Amino acid sequence: MFELKGYLKTKSRIVESALNNLFTNCISYNLLSAMNYSLKSGGKRIRPILVMASRDMLLKQEVKDPIDYHNVMPLACAVEIIHTYSLIHDDLPAMDNDDLRRGKPTNHKVYGDAVATLAGDALLTEAFNVLCLLSKHHEPEKVIDVIKYVSRSSGMNGMVGGQVLDIENDGVHGVKPDLDYLYKTSYGKTGELIKASVASPAILYGTTKDVDNLEGYGKAIGVAFQMVDDVLGATTTKEQLGKSAHIDEKNNKTTFIDLLGVDETKKMATKEIEKAKSFVSSYGTFAQPLISIADYIIQRNH
Amino acid sequence: MFELKGYLKTKSRIVESALNNLFTNCISYNLLSAMNYSLKSGGKRIRPILVMASRDMLLKQEVKDPIDYHNVMPLACAVEIIHTYSLIHDDLPAMDNDDLRRGKPTNHKVYGDAVATLAGDALLTEAFNVLCLLSKHHEPEKVIDVIKYVSRSSGMNGMVGGQVLDIENDGVHGVKPDLDYLYKTSYGKTGELIKASVASPAILYGTTKDVDNLEGYGKAIGVAFQMVDDVLGATTTKEQLGKSAHIDEKNNKTTFIDLLGVDETKKMATKEIEKAKSFVSSYGTFAQPLISIADYIIQRNH
Repeated sequence: MFELKGYLKTKSRIVESALNNLFTNCISYNLLSAMNYSLKSGGKRIRPILVMASRDMLLKQEVKDPIDYHNVMPLACAVEIIHTYSLIHDDLPAMDNDDLRRGKPTNHKVYGDAVATLAGDALLTEAFNVLCLLSKHHEPEKVIDVIKYVSRSSGMNGMVGGQVLDIENDGVHGVKPDLDYLYKTSYGKTGELIKASVASPAILYGTTKDVDNLEGYGKAIGVAFQMVDDVLGATTTKEQLGKSAHIDEKNNKTTFIDLLGVDETKKMATKEIEKAKSFVSSYGTFAQPLISIADYIIQRNH
Repeated sequence: MFELKGYLKTKSRIVESALNNLFTNCISYNLLSAMNYSLKSGGKRIRPILVMASRDMLLKQEVKDPIDYHNVMPLACAVEIIHTYSLIHDDLPAMDNDDLRRGKPTNHKVYGDAVATLAGDALLTEAFNVLCLLSKHHEPEKVIDVIKYVSRSSGMNGMVGGQVLDIENDGVHGVKPDLDYLYKTSYGKTGELIKASVASPAILYGTTKDVDNLEGYGKAIGVAFQMVDDVLGATTTKEQLGKSAHIDEKNNKTTFIDLLGVDETKKMATKEIEKAKSFVSSYGTFAQPLISIADYIIQRNH
């Protein structure tokens, strides 16, 4: 019987250990400190865990020794670094203006807006340097394909594009967000990097069909993740969430809750999760972690 | 007789044309518009021109047809994109809080702080996607080496690291900037990306010795560029400069002028330029553009 909690704990420890040793030298002590403050401040590490789970499924291997992951660890770290930079910038006063993240003061609250902005920039830049480490273990053509894929997923038509759509959804930009708009925003803002986490290993180890399947899985759990976030944002307190609650209300943002209500949003999220699972069901027992992670997304309460 | 003005004009037109066609589709019209606003707002295009000049010197070719540059154009565009993102973030209220850039309102003055921050993020991310286009024309191993080199030059121990040192030089961070500190800041903030522009073509076309020579040239003109900037910042009006003058004074920043005075700073800059030229003198006539660009940096008045 597969036990997700232990699985996530074991895998997140492997990532933490890799992240802890990643950035140790910098011409500015303050910058290094700011980068590591956010990088080492915990979080679920879902994206790097998806990298590992996808790798295991494609190679049909259950990995016991952390060393077996060294071939994908640069990818696992890079997606977490990109996620981290996006949180730092997202929390800035110019954006969500959030003071709390994972129960701790946000980066700019500790280091100031300028250094927080630059810590985000440095993390994003270094993520691509880290991706280049894949070339120690993989054909250079494939590594370039991964760099292309990750940059597209994170860029103007991926994560950052989705973030701008999200910002324009503020009641003052003249945008009237309908369901399509919220889907496009969620795919971009949340789905694209999750998609890259789960589909990039297929570039290294799989076929085009594997890439397609894992893209389908990734986009679906990404949008479900955003829907659950909206539900939690509307129904949870600051203490439970570990970050400021009801922030969307404060910012006049239209959410899935506004268009569908809490119950219907939960139903739609469940539908996305079922779709996600259907994309990986054909991989048999080795798909179990990805299936459990999909279920976990719908069940999480913080 | 080599004529620099015409050379710069011809080469910058080639870059402009490539940059104009680079970003045309985006899920957010506003983001695309913000990215292109800064990318197409002129500037000297020194970094991409250095890419082309370095290529010509290494291949001992005088190029007449723009098409001959298609092999290095992704690199030329990428360094200009990275330079552009850094200017957008540098102008933000959280940083230099500058309203004017190249005689036009800065990005955040037009698009707001949030979209300007994200336009910078998108440009930085897409720069690495653009670098991947080099793989159409070069061995993938070399392309990965270029991506590594550019990301290191732009990251925590390169441009961004230098920017943080620069920010901490504000009279309130407890830093007492001496000449070493200003050199380290200038190498990082300005020298590293210039170095990457001129040395990356040597990764594609040259030897380790070529990389070393062009690194030496790039770092020296980079620091000279910063010294001349300090001189211009202290002696020029807003109208002449096309951006706010005396900004360093306003921000309590210690500059080369404060430590050395205007005349001695000019002398030091001249010394750096002579050093730069010595690194490329052995390449004969094909080094002429790089030598003239070095001379131009010391002679520029805006």
